[in-house]
Amino acid sequence: MTYCVGLLLDQGLVMLADTRTNGGIDNICCFAKLHVFNTPGERQIAVMTAGNLAVSQAVINLIREGMPDPDSGELRTIHSVSGMFEAASLVGEAVRWVFEKHGKVMRQQKVPFDVSVLIGGQIAGAPQRLFEVYSAGNFIEATRDTPFLQVGEHKYGKPILDRSINSDTSLADGVKLALISMDSTLRSNLSVGMPLDLLVYTRDRIDGGMQRRVSEEDVYFRQLRDAWSRALHDAQRAIPAPDWGQARG
Amino acid sequence: MTYCVGLLLDQGLVMLADTRTNGGIDNICCFAKLHVFNTPGERQIAVMTAGNLAVSQAVINLIREGMPDPDSGELRTIHSVSGMFEAASLVGEAVRWVFEKHGKVMRQQKVPFDVSVLIGGQIAGAPQRLFEVYSAGNFIEATRDTPFLQVGEHKYGKPILDRSINSDTSLADGVKLALISMDSTLRSNLSVGMPLDLLVYTRDRIDGGMQRRVSEEDVYFRQLRDAWSRALHDAQRAIPAPDWGQARG
Repeated sequence: MTYCVGLLLDQGLVMLADTRTNGGIDNICCFAKLHVFNTPGERQIAVMTAGNLAVSQAVINLIREGMPDPDSGELRTIHSVSGMFEAASLVGEAVRWVFEKHGKVMRQQKVPFDVSVLIGGQIAGAPQRLFEVYSAGNFIEATRDTPFLQVGEHKYGKPILDRSINSDTSLADGVKLALISMDSTLRSNLSVGMPLDLLVYTRDRIDGGMQRRVSEEDVYFRQLRDAWSRALHDAQRAIPAPDWGQARG
Repeated sequence: MTYCVGLLLDQGLVMLADTRTNGGIDNICCFAKLHVFNTPGERQIAVMTAGNLAVSQAVINLIREGMPDPDSGELRTIHSVSGMFEAASLVGEAVRWVFEKHGKVMRQQKVPFDVSVLIGGQIAGAPQRLFEVYSAGNFIEATRDTPFLQVGEHKYGKPILDRSINSDTSLADGVKLALISMDSTLRSNLSVGMPLDLLVYTRDRIDGGMQRRVSEEDVYFRQLRDAWSRALHDAQRAIPAPDWGQARG
C-alpha cells in the first residue's frame, strides 16, 4: 500500500509520500514514490504514485524518457511539456500506454490494473497546479474549495485534513498537517511505512523547492508525533463527561 | 454505508451506531442498526449490524424469532442462549442461513453478500464479552490487547481509537472517544449519518444499561464536536514549525 498527499496552498505546494511497497505482508520493500523533475528558474514538477509498482515505475519511465506525440511523432517528456495541464495529460497518456501494453495479461492473471498519480508543480510564468491522474488516464485538479488530493490509503489521514486544510493554510502549517495525517496512517496501516519523502515548492519561486527525507530518527517528526499524541490525549481529557446515567464519569 | 463501534472496557461495554442506510447516494434512509435484547437481572445483549440491509434485518429476525437446533429441533433464540459465545454462534448460524437462502440469487444479480455484526453483552454469572461476526458466519472476539471492534466504514474513526482506547479507559472516556471516532467518520463519509444510537452496559450490572438516541440537536454532542475541533486546531497551532528551509513558519 501507499499513502501520498498533496496540498495546493496559496503559499505553495506540499507533497508527502511514504516509501513502503508490498507484494503481500511478507514481502515489504522501500521504494521512493516521490519523483522530482526540476529545472531551476524554468520548471519544478513533482510526481507521487500509488498502486501497482510495475505500472508506476513504467509511467515514471515513460514521462522521463518521453512518449512520441501522436501527430508530429516528436518525443514529449515531463521536461518538454509547456504547462501543468499538459504534464498531467502526459502522465495520463503514459498510464494508458502501460494499460494497452500490460492490461490484458494482468487481467488474465487477475492482477488489478491499479495506479493513481499526484502531479503538482509550476512552470515559470504559469500558475502552480496539482492534479490526480486515475488508472484510466483521466484526471482531476485541486481547487480552492478542495485544496488537497490523496492517493493510496487515504482514509485514516483524511479527517485531520478535512478539518484543517484551507487554501490559506500556511506552508509551515501545511507541512505539519501533512505529517500528522501521515502519522495517523502509519499507526493504522502497516503497509504504509517510513521513511517519508517531503517536498515543498513555494509559489512562484522556481528554485527546486525544499526536499527532505524524514526518517524514524528525525528529531522534528518525533517531536511532532509525541506532541500530537499528547495533545489529543489532553483534549479528550478536557472534554467533560456526558451527564447520561451509566456513561457519566 | 454504516459505522458501528463497540468497546469492551474493564468498566463495561460501549456500543455506538449511526442510523443511515443507502442504496445509492440518492436513496438514503434512517434505520436503527443497534438492536437490544435485555432481560433485566438475567441478560443484556446488544447487536449492531453493517452491510446489506435485507441480510441484516433477516439475521436480526432469525435470532429474535429463533432457529431450530440441528440436533434437538428446539428453537434457539437470543433470549434462550446460555452464554455470549453461543449468542455469537447463533448470529453466525443466522448469517449462514440467510446466505443459503439468498446468496445464490444475490450472486447472480451481482449483489455482494455483505454483512458484519457486532454482538456484545453479558449473561448473569458470566463475563461481559464482545464479538464480531463475519459474512461467513465465523467470528472473532475483542480481548484486552484489542478491546474495540468496528464494522462498516471503520477507517476514518480508527486513528483516535488506536491512540487512546485501552481496557482501563473509563466508561465516560470510552463514550467520549466513541463519539469522537463517529464524528470523524460523519465528517468524511456522507453515507454515515445522524442520529446515533448509543448503549452503555456497566460490567456486572444486568439492569438494561443506558440507551440514548443522540440527535443533531443533542447539546452534549454539539459541545463535544466543537470542543474537539477547537482542541485539534489549537494542538496543531501549538506544535512548532519545522526548521526546514521553505517549510519554515
